[in-house]
Amino acid sequence: MRRLGIHSFVWTGGQTQDGLEMALEKSAEHGYRMIEFAYLRPERFDLDRLATKAKELDIDIVVTMGLPAAADVSSEEPAAVAKGRAFLSDAVKAVRDIGGIRLGGILYSMHGKYDRMPTERGWMNSAEAIAATAHVARDCGVELVLEIVNRFESNLLNTAAQGLKFIADTGRDDVYLHLDSFHMNIEEADPAAAIRLARDKLTYYHIGENYRGYLGTGTVDFDAVFSALVDIDYDRDIVFESFSSSIVDEGLSLACGIWRDTWTDNDPLAAHAKTFIEMKWAEAQRRRATNAAA
Amino acid sequence: MRRLGIHSFVWTGGQTQDGLEMALEKSAEHGYRMIEFAYLRPERFDLDRLATKAKELDIDIVVTMGLPAAADVSSEEPAAVAKGRAFLSDAVKAVRDIGGIRLGGILYSMHGKYDRMPTERGWMNSAEAIAATAHVARDCGVELVLEIVNRFESNLLNTAAQGLKFIADTGRDDVYLHLDSFHMNIEEADPAAAIRLARDKLTYYHIGENYRGYLGTGTVDFDAVFSALVDIDYDRDIVFESFSSSIVDEGLSLACGIWRDTWTDNDPLAAHAKTFIEMKWAEAQRRRATNAAA
Amino acid sequence: MRRLGIHSFVWTGGQTQDGLEMALEKSAEHGYRMIEFAYLRPERFDLDRLATKAKELDIDIVVTMGLPAAADVSSEEPAAVAKGRAFLSDAVKAVRDIGGIRLGGILYSMHGKYDRMPTERGWMNSAEAIAATAHVARDCGVELVLEIVNRFESNLLNTAAQGLKFIADTGRDDVYLHLDSFHMNIEEADPAAAIRLARDKLTYYHIGENYRGYLGTGTVDFDAVFSALVDIDYDRDIVFESFSSSIVDEGLSLACGIWRDTWTDNDPLAAHAKTFIEMKWAEAQRRRATNAAA
Amino acid sequence: MRRLGIHSFVWTGGQTQDGLEMALEKSAEHGYRMIEFAYLRPERFDLDRLATKAKELDIDIVVTMGLPAAADVSSEEPAAVAKGRAFLSDAVKAVRDIGGIRLGGILYSMHGKYDRMPTERGWMNSAEAIAATAHVARDCGVELVLEIVNRFESNLLNTAAQGLKFIADTGRDDVYLHLDSFHMNIEEADPAAAIRLARDKLTYYHIGENYRGYLGTGTVDFDAVFSALVDIDYDRDIVFESFSSSIVDEGLSLACGIWRDTWTDNDPLAAHAKTFIEMKWAEAQRRRATNAAA
Repeated sequence: MRRLGIHSFVWTGGQTQDGLEMALEKSAEHGYRMIEFAYLRPERFDLDRLATKAKELDIDIVVTMGLPAAADVSSEEPAAVAKGRAFLSDAVKAVRDIGGIRLGGILYSMHGKYDRMPTERGWMNSAEAIAATAHVARDCGVELVLEIVNRFESNLLNTAAQGLKFIADTGRDDVYLHLDSFHMNIEEADPAAAIRLARDKLTYYHIGENYRGYLGTGTVDFDAVFSALVDIDYDRDIVFESFSSSIVDEGLSLACGIWRDTWTDNDPLAAHAKTFIEMKWAEAQRRRATNAAA
Repeated sequence: MRRLGIHSFVWTGGQTQDGLEMALEKSAEHGYRMIEFAYLRPERFDLDRLATKAKELDIDIVVTMGLPAAADVSSEEPAAVAKGRAFLSDAVKAVRDIGGIRLGGILYSMHGKYDRMPTERGWMNSAEAIAATAHVARDCGVELVLEIVNRFESNLLNTAAQGLKFIADTGRDDVYLHLDSFHMNIEEADPAAAIRLARDKLTYYHIGENYRGYLGTGTVDFDAVFSALVDIDYDRDIVFESFSSSIVDEGLSLACGIWRDTWTDNDPLAAHAKTFIEMKWAEAQRRRATNAAA
Repeated sequence: MRRLGIHSFVWTGGQTQDGLEMALEKSAEHGYRMIEFAYLRPERFDLDRLATKAKELDIDIVVTMGLPAAADVSSEEPAAVAKGRAFLSDAVKAVRDIGGIRLGGILYSMHGKYDRMPTERGWMNSAEAIAATAHVARDCGVELVLEIVNRFESNLLNTAAQGLKFIADTGRDDVYLHLDSFHMNIEEADPAAAIRLARDKLTYYHIGENYRGYLGTGTVDFDAVFSALVDIDYDRDIVFESFSSSIVDEGLSLACGIWRDTWTDNDPLAAHAKTFIEMKWAEAQRRRATNAAA
Repeated sequence: MRRLGIHSFVWTGGQTQDGLEMALEKSAEHGYRMIEFAYLRPERFDLDRLATKAKELDIDIVVTMGLPAAADVSSEEPAAVAKGRAFLSDAVKAVRDIGGIRLGGILYSMHGKYDRMPTERGWMNSAEAIAATAHVARDCGVELVLEIVNRFESNLLNTAAQGLKFIADTGRDDVYLHLDSFHMNIEEADPAAAIRLARDKLTYYHIGENYRGYLGTGTVDFDAVFSALVDIDYDRDIVFESFSSSIVDEGLSLACGIWRDTWTDNDPLAAHAKTFIEMKWAEAQRRRATNAAA
């Protein structure tokens, strides 16, 4: 793994400049080297100041988001698609302006519960929009990753295999997969095999528990996850994600269905997650070495 | 386990009398002794004829459903609550009329993705509505079970512990839990412990894989599930559930986000599920006996 | 998988011609297509008659054994090594004479609990003896497979990685691995990874539960095992093994520490194992297909 | 959990006074509050000095051992049984003299691979010997715990259920179970259920990985283990055990079949084990609390 990061919603609902700066400081204080900002509204913040602070703290910034219904590039409505393309292009530039390295999330469709089946034409509209966005992203020095999410948060890409086919359909070699243990637990027959399938197309990995609470207290088989990551010699980033109704951004909370407090105190949560991930990573490496030793 | 059943959507989208009768026949042919009809619209069908056919085939009928937004008993709007109470009462009577033994599902709230947090007042409105419905159900000889579902299908009851508290708040001793391995995989920290917690309040159990496909191909730890069921001396019903976009009722498919074909041929699916469940049940019994043998 | 087999000790202690013939018949009756005879004493039986019967029933024969202390080819004593080489050569010929296809087991050391550490010289003595035996085996049309066993049954080869190194040291390309889920559960950090490591060197696989009882009632993660076998496109044989004090060969029972009845009735055991293995195999194939479907 | 301890063989082969004192210091330095000495030979050491040092460091001492063949109380030979009784009585007194709180291990039979089946008479001889030893132990203020081990290390007590029956047959209420995750992985159909079965008869628990290496790198389902311990409100001691051929007592190494280096550096091993156990314990408590929260 390259850098271990943490989602900013562990620290703040993300509505204020002070909140985001505190999140950067807390992340650094806990030893994380990357932060994820979600649904960043660039017009509200002093991006330069955030960029400078992140650089001082040696924290990489990643931004994630999902499209609103009116800007859904997987729509069959040309107006929505056009709006979505502009939305994505603006987002890439905002990532550049905040000094970010990557734009991820549900860039290829609306983030939310669909009430219609996906269509082939919508798929192609989306693939073309992502291809165009990748062109902009390359110019901006921003990496583009597509988050594969569960059926209730998009109807288009729910599995790594679908994501790989979609990336092939963009015709680009600079669009990558963003996998997430929470979503994979709902959609993949074999999450570890899905990681192996993604292989070097995987450049961003979200660690979250099945019910979005403390790592290790739920049903995700993290030993299998980390063995798969070690198997593919994963050398990119891992970011911890946990949501509680204690700290929320209203939009994300509703989109993700965060109705419960799964924790109330974020400091021990963040400390535990860092120890947990580093320990599991070390155990997986040792497991491989032990298995191969003769 | 008392009876092993199967969801009718394995066989039919459920729009026609012929479809439902075929579903009864197919279930019996495969050796199932119970069928679940969902979102049954009594006005469309000859309930007597279905009741007679089920009796001939020695198949028990269970009906499940969720409330529409306009009849959400967990709403704070008195009109919606009143509409929901009438809806539930009518549903109980339809179950009686079709010769059914049980009404289950998301009886306590809307079935779908909420865009608001649950409220205490909504909770009490719902508990009172369920209490009133239980009164009707007792008169009709119909058992009432509340399905605990994932956060994207209700915002009120996502865990067994919440369900038990809710049942206590109804003040009734004849309202039971309906747990489901698919939903528990998303919401419970420890699904087996949740079954043990539910204990004799559990009278209906849905077996489904994490991604709703073939049993045993996904991530649900069925050995732990069946050991827990054997642990609590579970002697009620188990029903197999799997949805594919191959066979659909539009309403349920959209509510449940069935965007993918997880299978196309239902006969081998149903045959496999029966063997799988009976084998796991026998293995769990043998596991307990082996563990206790000295 | 090519053929599914069963160990003869499910049926008989193996002391009589009638016992072995019954075992062949029972195996065929249950649909197995391969049988394993262990510690076969060729001088006691009518090998021709067994060969003919097996052929009629379309049952392949595999023979397994371990060396006695006095014929331990991993010894540093030249006399023991020489005796072991002769022992192995005779065993290969007996397999040929009974019409068998394979000789397996602990061919490279004593079968039992050592009271000394393994030595480098013993390792080389053993590798040379196996190389010489492989030469004989090739002439006899018998495949040679080395069973990797737990620390209490040999001190030399306890892991797949050790086995692969040992095979390399024989300098032969016709010596293969015989892995066993019971032994791997004690010795491998990651049994599934060990199967992937063995890859095409694996030609014989024993399925046994952690405590040697009914499959699926214990701790072995058979889903991971079968996914690994499907991953390496395993197309060789799988043999079911379960020992109970109900049916025993004294030598094997003592070597394997069979002090308990884990079952008393072999017919349901054999029937369950066949269904279990075929179901797990099908599930693993479907898991892979589901995971790759886009 | 009351105290977390570590086996002295992580630090030393245990042959010298200096070695044992260093082991006490290392254990304390790493934050362990208990140490296990195995096969302590009281005649070789200054027990007073060890007792004083342990007290200063606030380290509790536990001693474990298994009987030699000549002093096997499960024998049918009166001479062996008599010798075994004396052996046990002396051992209890040595534990008292070293200021120890508990005597554990294979007190009821030989420690090693049997070449004969257990007998009823041997069982009763052993139960009577343990009852007599318990009498002495009560006078000495030493707790007696019986380690349930795998089939290759004793033929008498291989499962918790057997252990409970045996304890009942002693007629004593002051003899307890000593369970061990390594042994349970070989013998129990359901290790977590066995812990629940043992309930308050369990007062000493060994944590070891399936192949005796680093915790978390092997196949033991520690989440299930810790959930079971939390389930029974376990408030007694847990001791970490890992053996490598790097550090050995010859007797124990041969009895336990330690042929491989599973680690070479004990400091990181001990540090990891402490973090691992404390983290798993906290996760299991949080899992239970989360599951019960409504």
